[in-house]
Amino acid sequence: MYPDSLEALIESLMVLPGVGRKTAERYAFHLIEGEKDATEKIIASIETVNQSLTQCKICYNYADKEICKICSNQNRNHNIICVVSSPKDVFSIEKAGQFNGVYHVLKGLISTRKGVMPEDLTINELLKRIDENTEEVILALSATVEGETTALYVSKKLESMNAPVSRLAFGLPIGGQLEYTDDMTLMKAFEGRKRMK
Amino acid sequence: MYPDSLEALIESLMVLPGVGRKTAERYAFHLIEGEKDATEKIIASIETVNQSLTQCKICYNYADKEICKICSNQNRNHNIICVVSSPKDVFSIEKAGQFNGVYHVLKGLISTRKGVMPEDLTINELLKRIDENTEEVILALSATVEGETTALYVSKKLESMNAPVSRLAFGLPIGGQLEYTDDMTLMKAFEGRKRMK
Ligand SMILES: [Zn+2]
Ligand SMILES: [Zn+2]
Repeated sequence: MYPDSLEALIESLMVLPGVGRKTAERYAFHLIEGEKDATEKIIASIETVNQSLTQCKICYNYADKEICKICSNQNRNHNIICVVSSPKDVFSIEKAGQFNGVYHVLKGLISTRKGVMPEDLTINELLKRIDENTEEVILALSATVEGETTALYVSKKLESMNAPVSRLAFGLPIGGQLEYTDDMTLMKAFEGRKRMK
Repeated sequence: MYPDSLEALIESLMVLPGVGRKTAERYAFHLIEGEKDATEKIIASIETVNQSLTQCKICYNYADKEICKICSNQNRNHNIICVVSSPKDVFSIEKAGQFNGVYHVLKGLISTRKGVMPEDLTINELLKRIDENTEEVILALSATVEGETTALYVSKKLESMNAPVSRLAFGLPIGGQLEYTDDMTLMKAFEGRKRMK
């Protein structure tokens, strides 16, 4: 019914999360009828991201350079490391605006179900960052089975190095994903964090 | 807070209709974390649409070739012309699946408020399509002030050429946009269409 090129565009947009056919049609019509500039900007920015977005050599967060904005900020406390599973979580915590340390992105969670093993994550890279100056390692992982498993595994490794480990208080709703947690809950969870063991 | 390239992508996606910052963030993360293939498909299909999507030389609907799929379909009745304001309306009526004639896209509606004059539309091109074989011209325009104004103007022109003009029955909710009308209402509106004057 649509010209083939328009149909292809609609179908390609349906891969976006939560986008069904109706919404994809609206986006497609906007892309072809809206301002040419805006459409070109979308293409250009996807291409720029594909080319220039990389991961920080220190914390594995997204970065445009070798070292991310947070790791290269000297006003932050580099001896407090907040461990998260993905870059999304970094942005959620930054939005809450209460944390002034640095991060470590594990790039996943240990999962027997999905076959994700500890060595698939950046756990060794985290351990290499620990030294006698490390004041605290905060585990900010989702309150799910996989989050719990990973927290336990990582905390044992850290404790064997005598690093002070804490984890977020159970302000997180049980079973809830960290990335969907509102700022206030995240702040409370930070405030109420307690030492592990 | 985000790397510059990611921030630029998020902002560029916010031009899509109904997309706020949260949704744009979700789309952006999907585009960088999802399947590379899917993202490349979106870019490729936007570019293909930009290059190959054109307007039908006969009806001004979107087309991949000189003549659109509908105008080049010999199983349709080319002597019944349904007049709409935009390509979106063609697709809405095609979805309803009741109409077997052809279309004419005016590319807008007469509007004193927006400064759209009859000569800005494809009204002359419509008149050129009318001949002694024309069985019916159906005006399928929104039930808004601008739709009414345009219907009146076009119907007078057509009547002066002795073309049989009808318009959709007021099954359309008053003030409603044709493109948001559901299939059933559109079907009823088609069935109940009546001759103008
Ligand atoms: Zn970093
Ligand atoms: Zn056509």
